[in-house]
Amino acid sequence: MPSYTAPLRDMQFVMHEVLGVTDVFKSLPVHKEIDQDTINQILEQAAKFAKEVVQPLNQNGDRQGCTRHADGAVTTPDGFKQAYEQYVQAGWPSLACSPEHGGQGLPVLLNTALYEMLNSANQAWTMYPGLSHGAYECLQAHGTAEQKALYLEKLVSGEWLGTMCLTEPQCGTDLGILKTKAEPQTDGSYAITGTKIFISSGEHDLGKNIIHLVLARLPDAPAGTKGISLFVVPKYLPNAAGEIHDNNKNTLSCGSLEDKMGIHGNATCVMNFDGARGTLVGEPHKGLRAMFIMMNAARLGVGMQSVGLTEVAYQNSAAYAKERLQMRSLKGAQAPDKVADPIIVHPDVRRMLLTQRAYAEGARAFAYWIALMIDIEQNHPDSDERAAHGDLVTLLTPIVKAFITDNAFEATNEGLQVFGGHGYIADWGMEQFVRDSRINMIYEGTNTIQSLDLLGRKVLSDVGVKLKKFGKMIEAFIEAEGVRKEMAEFIDPLAELAKQAEKLTKEIGVKAMFNHNEVGAAAVPYLRVLGHLVYAYLFARMAKVALANKKSGDTFYEAKLATARFYFARMLPEAAYQAQLARSGEATLMSLDAALF
Amino acid sequence: MPSYTAPLRDMQFVMHEVLGVTDVFKSLPVHKEIDQDTINQILEQAAKFAKEVVQPLNQNGDRQGCTRHADGAVTTPDGFKQAYEQYVQAGWPSLACSPEHGGQGLPVLLNTALYEMLNSANQAWTMYPGLSHGAYECLQAHGTAEQKALYLEKLVSGEWLGTMCLTEPQCGTDLGILKTKAEPQTDGSYAITGTKIFISSGEHDLGKNIIHLVLARLPDAPAGTKGISLFVVPKYLPNAAGEIHDNNKNTLSCGSLEDKMGIHGNATCVMNFDGARGTLVGEPHKGLRAMFIMMNAARLGVGMQSVGLTEVAYQNSAAYAKERLQMRSLKGAQAPDKVADPIIVHPDVRRMLLTQRAYAEGARAFAYWIALMIDIEQNHPDSDERAAHGDLVTLLTPIVKAFITDNAFEATNEGLQVFGGHGYIADWGMEQFVRDSRINMIYEGTNTIQSLDLLGRKVLSDVGVKLKKFGKMIEAFIEAEGVRKEMAEFIDPLAELAKQAEKLTKEIGVKAMFNHNEVGAAAVPYLRVLGHLVYAYLFARMAKVALANKKSGDTFYEAKLATARFYFARMLPEAAYQAQLARSGEATLMSLDAALF
Repeated sequence: MPSYTAPLRDMQFVMHEVLGVTDVFKSLPVHKEIDQDTINQILEQAAKFAKEVVQPLNQNGDRQGCTRHADGAVTTPDGFKQAYEQYVQAGWPSLACSPEHGGQGLPVLLNTALYEMLNSANQAWTMYPGLSHGAYECLQAHGTAEQKALYLEKLVSGEWLGTMCLTEPQCGTDLGILKTKAEPQTDGSYAITGTKIFISSGEHDLGKNIIHLVLARLPDAPAGTKGISLFVVPKYLPNAAGEIHDNNKNTLSCGSLEDKMGIHGNATCVMNFDGARGTLVGEPHKGLRAMFIMMNAARLGVGMQSVGLTEVAYQNSAAYAKERLQMRSLKGAQAPDKVADPIIVHPDVRRMLLTQRAYAEGARAFAYWIALMIDIEQNHPDSDERAAHGDLVTLLTPIVKAFITDNAFEATNEGLQVFGGHGYIADWGMEQFVRDSRINMIYEGTNTIQSLDLLGRKVLSDVGVKLKKFGKMIEAFIEAEGVRKEMAEFIDPLAELAKQAEKLTKEIGVKAMFNHNEVGAAAVPYLRVLGHLVYAYLFARMAKVALANKKSGDTFYEAKLATARFYFARMLPEAAYQAQLARSGEATLMSLDAALF
Repeated sequence: MPSYTAPLRDMQFVMHEVLGVTDVFKSLPVHKEIDQDTINQILEQAAKFAKEVVQPLNQNGDRQGCTRHADGAVTTPDGFKQAYEQYVQAGWPSLACSPEHGGQGLPVLLNTALYEMLNSANQAWTMYPGLSHGAYECLQAHGTAEQKALYLEKLVSGEWLGTMCLTEPQCGTDLGILKTKAEPQTDGSYAITGTKIFISSGEHDLGKNIIHLVLARLPDAPAGTKGISLFVVPKYLPNAAGEIHDNNKNTLSCGSLEDKMGIHGNATCVMNFDGARGTLVGEPHKGLRAMFIMMNAARLGVGMQSVGLTEVAYQNSAAYAKERLQMRSLKGAQAPDKVADPIIVHPDVRRMLLTQRAYAEGARAFAYWIALMIDIEQNHPDSDERAAHGDLVTLLTPIVKAFITDNAFEATNEGLQVFGGHGYIADWGMEQFVRDSRINMIYEGTNTIQSLDLLGRKVLSDVGVKLKKFGKMIEAFIEAEGVRKEMAEFIDPLAELAKQAEKLTKEIGVKAMFNHNEVGAAAVPYLRVLGHLVYAYLFARMAKVALANKKSGDTFYEAKLATARFYFARMLPEAAYQAQLARSGEATLMSLDAALF
């Protein structure tokens, strides 16, 4: 059975030593009182909760899965409900919610760190509160006063949970062709009718009510994405006082549970809406825009799922590699008193471990950095600062989602491989990490969609303005640090990659003017190039701190430098290769007649 | 539910148009009568059997899995037993077995093609006859006259099946530390006692007897790999006439079934040997050498499992991509009469399809080429020819195993991704291909072990002699074809890669003289470089044939050229990247103290 201990030292390193978060918080009026002790205490409490309450349920949750009963009710795996009750009692759902609705008003950054730990412990369980938080954010941003009054407090407390209902059998990516209908009723509400599929946490036994955010079409809706509206459709309809009763059940139900590759502990539902009563969120026909608030947060959320899985796969495979005795080092016995050497003496085992470790540390730094920028975007008194950080968040969100989740799949697979045949056996838990992580490359927009969003919308449509801002940030860092000889091993390749990325972007931009398919042909490798640019920048920043502190004798810094060096030697070279693929053009993809496939 | 139709046209293209197998067979006395019609008829029959009998059992086999009963008996999924009976009745087990023992004496190449199709249809089922064939080969090569008389005919007919029992809880890769004991008995037999794990097809209901080939230690055995002997230990002990009865059950049993990530239809057993009676195969203490006969065949067999999965994942995702309507082409609507375009209009969907296709076609050409060389190695009248082809087989076997299985995991994952969210759902069958293919990177020697075998044993220990032979073959092809302008797009990158691979090999060889860990640090990326060298060579050969025939109007050649061009543009660049990793040295892997992981 796998184990998990939150990597508090590395989390604190990123927050306090690399990002200097408390200094940043001082510039944000709502967060200016938050000090390191407060942060560290919250992290420690969250670490304890993840390890002691949530993680022990993970393996059984995978085996047992969810159960749908004849009446459409769904039972989650043993212990999930009790763990959720403890979660609510401890106040975790409210951590980063607005005090206006009963929240603790703490930074997004802390919520992000909480979710890393919960996801390391149990991704399937964590999806229940995770989607609820998304629903909270969406209603907080777009709900009417009445909707806010009815729903927010209970979502913040965790008493009620939420979902996103987008996908239908005929459309996932292409929401423009969705069919679910919303008929206006005389009382101002709407009757929602249609079938939604792949609804995570669609029905379950964790809370008293489930608040569905549903995309549907009004009768007069224009075709396509400009005719989609957003509705809040609760499982139980609250009265004006916000109370629910068994006889207020809405006409919606879980038609079946999907049999999936992983995340078995989460109820992935086919949801049938049979004239279910809902109310409109935001303006008619502008539902997609409102939903995108939730989608963007969800994309960071999916990134965090994969940060969590990368970390826990690393921890377990590193522990195994130090204990499992098999073969001798090619340099001769390293543990001559034992029947064989621990497999960590073998260079390729170390490659597999360091790949996971570098991906975990890179992803953590990336995700926390983004989360901190979201806090600035939301709370900085200066609107230019808010806009500038918002731009970076917008640019980098598809990279957070796609780069981290692709890497996590690779990392969890390397973790499995360290275990050899045992990795393939369910008892050890490693294969579950692989299966769970696989969905992260698909949902909330497939990684191809993320890549098209990055290259098409965030870079080219914007004539590279946002990308240039990021480029300037890197340039400033290179100028400041490039003069120090000991930083050269990190700064030189970073500078080279930044130059290459700029050149590549221009080239693709020119080609795309003549043929739009060049964007589709280049997008996926292009995202990986920019992903490495982000990681090279962040590993260089981390290396800088580590170099400054290595004389302290704290071996943490030694390990950080080793990981950074591994990253630059063994992982960054992928960027040049992907750049070559991004340049290779659409002809070799598109020339073959579709009928010949 | 996925479907499968054997790619007979491509199989015949590789055999007849690229490898010219019937001309080769003319030089082999035992196969000199085999003509194209015979080959094609056998392929067609095998295709029909795979599609109609074996494939329909695959998805239920995954869901139902195997069942162990209280008495240790194991039941395979519904239909497996009946399909196996049909397989035996049709004579498939005997296809490539020696006529001396009732076999049909057909080439290894045909058996290889048969196994590609069976594996596309159902890897878990195919492992039962697959391991039997390995047991046949081992006893055929190393068994005593008595063992051959007792076992071979029944293994050839398929009435009895076989297994390999190597792994124990404390050792998988490191067989030198295995503990199972063999005590000599007064009648010349041995009493085998120990626990073996991960025994594929260890216990089941498909045949009347199961012949276990078991590694164990004699009482006087030296420590390590030089003290391991091989025994044949049947489930039921046959009398001198080769008959078995219920009261002749040997003292061995299945202790439990492993709960695995995939290949659920195959019974992966913990096997307990409690003084089970066996007889010695080959010489005492030289069991590993005998077992390696079986292992080498098994490595080609594992490669074929992954060829099969790559092909079936490709077929199903290509079909889906032509049907699934979602979004419009970036160049504007391509199917304006439909609600959206089929997703095959999107360049990145084509990248995913062509990746699978190129891996399937490259792997097929590679595996058939190796199989043909095995036929030459076994049957050529000239001993130099036998030795020369044997050398190439020896060199390339680890590449067949590791390169094809790594690629298949990538390919099946791309296949899943084409389906978006539906790919994650069990009904569609794509996620099963991913789970099934994952084991192929592990068993019969992990892919790291294959890489070490290639670089350490097959290349460096041999001072590059075998590799040079392969180099000369490529050189001759380049010289012959390099003069033709239309071949330049294939020949130039092939020549460049061949040069780089030679240079890389020398560099690593020099470094390894000073530090053996350099071998371990370079091995995995090095294998990928050589894998691409093989594929570049074979795609260039296939392109040559396609160019020569493209005027025929047969669109097959057009598609083959498109796939080859995709391979050179989008896949071959990985070789230069992996060469860079292979060069990066051991320091970044080994410098960090193991305690700091």
